Amino acid sequence: MSIYWNKRVKNLSPYVPGEQPRDRKFIKLNTNENPYPPSPKVIEAVQKAVNGDLRLYPDPDCAAFREAAARRYGVMPGQIFAGNGSDEILGFAFGAFFESIYADGPPLNAKTADVILFPDITYSFYPVYAGLWNIPYRQIHLRDDFYINCDDYRIPCAGIIFPNPNAPTGIPVPLADILSLAECLETQGRVLIIDEAYIAFSAQSAVPFINEHPNLLVVHTLSKSASLAGMRFGYAVGDEELITGLCRIRDSFNSYTIDRLALAAAAAAVADASYYDKINNRVIATRERTAESLKNLKFNVLQSAANFLFIKAPKISGRDLFCALREKGILARHFNKEKITDYLRVSIGTDEDMDEFIAACEEILNRI
Amino acid sequence: MSIYWNKRVKNLSPYVPGEQPRDRKFIKLNTNENPYPPSPKVIEAVQKAVNGDLRLYPDPDCAAFREAAARRYGVMPGQIFAGNGSDEILGFAFGAFFESIYADGPPLNAKTADVILFPDITYSFYPVYAGLWNIPYRQIHLRDDFYINCDDYRIPCAGIIFPNPNAPTGIPVPLADILSLAECLETQGRVLIIDEAYIAFSAQSAVPFINEHPNLLVVHTLSKSASLAGMRFGYAVGDEELITGLCRIRDSFNSYTIDRLALAAAAAAVADASYYDKINNRVIATRERTAESLKNLKFNVLQSAANFLFIKAPKISGRDLFCALREKGILARHFNKEKITDYLRVSIGTDEDMDEFIAACEEILNRI
Repeated sequence: MSIYWNKRVKNLSPYVPGEQPRDRKFIKLNTNENPYPPSPKVIEAVQKAVNGDLRLYPDPDCAAFREAAARRYGVMPGQIFAGNGSDEILGFAFGAFFESIYADGPPLNAKTADVILFPDITYSFYPVYAGLWNIPYRQIHLRDDFYINCDDYRIPCAGIIFPNPNAPTGIPVPLADILSLAECLETQGRVLIIDEAYIAFSAQSAVPFINEHPNLLVVHTLSKSASLAGMRFGYAVGDEELITGLCRIRDSFNSYTIDRLALAAAAAAVADASYYDKINNRVIATRERTAESLKNLKFNVLQSAANFLFIKAPKISGRDLFCALREKGILARHFNKEKITDYLRVSIGTDEDMDEFIAACEEILNRI
Repeated sequence: MSIYWNKRVKNLSPYVPGEQPRDRKFIKLNTNENPYPPSPKVIEAVQKAVNGDLRLYPDPDCAAFREAAARRYGVMPGQIFAGNGSDEILGFAFGAFFESIYADGPPLNAKTADVILFPDITYSFYPVYAGLWNIPYRQIHLRDDFYINCDDYRIPCAGIIFPNPNAPTGIPVPLADILSLAECLETQGRVLIIDEAYIAFSAQSAVPFINEHPNLLVVHTLSKSASLAGMRFGYAVGDEELITGLCRIRDSFNSYTIDRLALAAAAAAVADASYYDKINNRVIATRERTAESLKNLKFNVLQSAANFLFIKAPKISGRDLFCALREKGILARHFNKEKITDYLRVSIGTDEDMDEFIAACEEILNRI
């Protein structure tokens, strides 16, 4: 704790991302990366851009990407926002659409219309953003079976955010429930953010409905479904006024957040749906096969619409399974949180990766 | 103005970057880009990284860059912070080291120890950051000759930031004055941020003195001196506790702000001082030659230690000269601010660029 830190920095509990091993070679099933490489068209576009004008600033409007994304989704470029990963966009969105409270404001978790709502088990960055911007929030319990019940969110509030499918459970939320919630929030003049980081792996996207719901912001990332975690690129789709709100925060923080090569990669990726559908369908098939094998080993496996499985082993704690897998050179993700401490989140790798993972699980369970 | 924007977004006055023309070909002297390409070693490093694992997240610690920068400056990797452009780092630094005020806090420009200080003529992003984070500030007038007088800053305050050399004037600040100011602020427990975006073009860097001043944060960018504006990369050098403060804000906003290719480019760039010294010395020589030519045309040319000149034409307003140059296919930067409305900031291009610029000025002046 430094005397030079302000109150914000002293009080923050920063997000801790999954381990990125540098030295040892692991089967890396801990950060939901795609096991297949990006589209060859993406690599080609980046290689071309490397030989372009790196000495010149990138286009702050990201026009090439926004036009490509608009074509893909049948919306206007003004309804697309491009960001340095969907995390950056979420950071901007919390700063733009959810009201900050100040020293004399209501306490966190207050039951008032001034708090935003998100699930108690969800992407663990949400409370961090709320802390960064001093936004009061209330966490709504998942149902006992880990499903999000949208009816629980139909209360006075300052806005709502959740992922579809939810993380780290992978469980999808019915689109009809989301649209009905958007309508309910619209009457309150509040924003609904749907974080569709994993939408490509089975759930139904809300993007086609943004024209009907001016308060609905849908956030996507190229990290998982487009195999571009290394390029840091996300985008949001929503009403032009929401997009302008995001631009205003961005332009008060860092006018150019996306470099020329990331822009080139993203524009090529969003245009190549056929390649990505192919690899993501393979991920889905591998997920289903893996879920079956785990069930045969008596794991509890939650329904997943994502590129990961959320699983509970028989006879061994989540922490112990995590450590035993790590010893065998397999990285999974364990969350040190009471309700889910017996679970592991396991990303879907190649068929070979998952065969090794299943074999390792079997061996570990047999040892007990 | 949307009903979905919060108070922050409604009240912001975002930064407006210099024009990035998409259609017409200009001689681009408006955003201080380097006229020479990046080092061949940088291009090579990026090309190698393109064929690497773009599907995997980048190293959130930016270790390869921090180690290379630490070697370059003779400091520890823990004294280096890497950011998505120096703008992002400044955004984090305002959020980490300067105290936010709240609804009941002192008004902006209050004369109290709770305000931060920066010059009235300086990088126009500083008041924007202050607005984003609700930080009260006071702008200290430059001397009539546009110099920063460090003695004017020796008053109770919540922190100080200014560029060396200053922008958009280009005038350097004596290093001894900066170090003495750092000492004065240390007794108050406050941070001094020196924004050395243009340090490579003549002024003396404060980096060698960070070990003596735990409250001194020095911010650099690769945009100008390393010809990498298109890659978005900046870094800060300072005491490990200051760097940790920046990391805490970053990890509460976007854990990975730098993609794999930008990291590869930056690590190669910071290691290739000899290439960059060579091209930047050419820029300096061109600047001096251009300044002479402008003085011969009766321009007022401020002393510059940057890769731009801040100039006032005889007989024609800044705005009119800006427009006349634009018509001739030359972009410069005009700031619509009373004290400097008759000035233009002109980036230093190649010798050929500047010959065309001088010829255009001569022609415009002769027409009057």
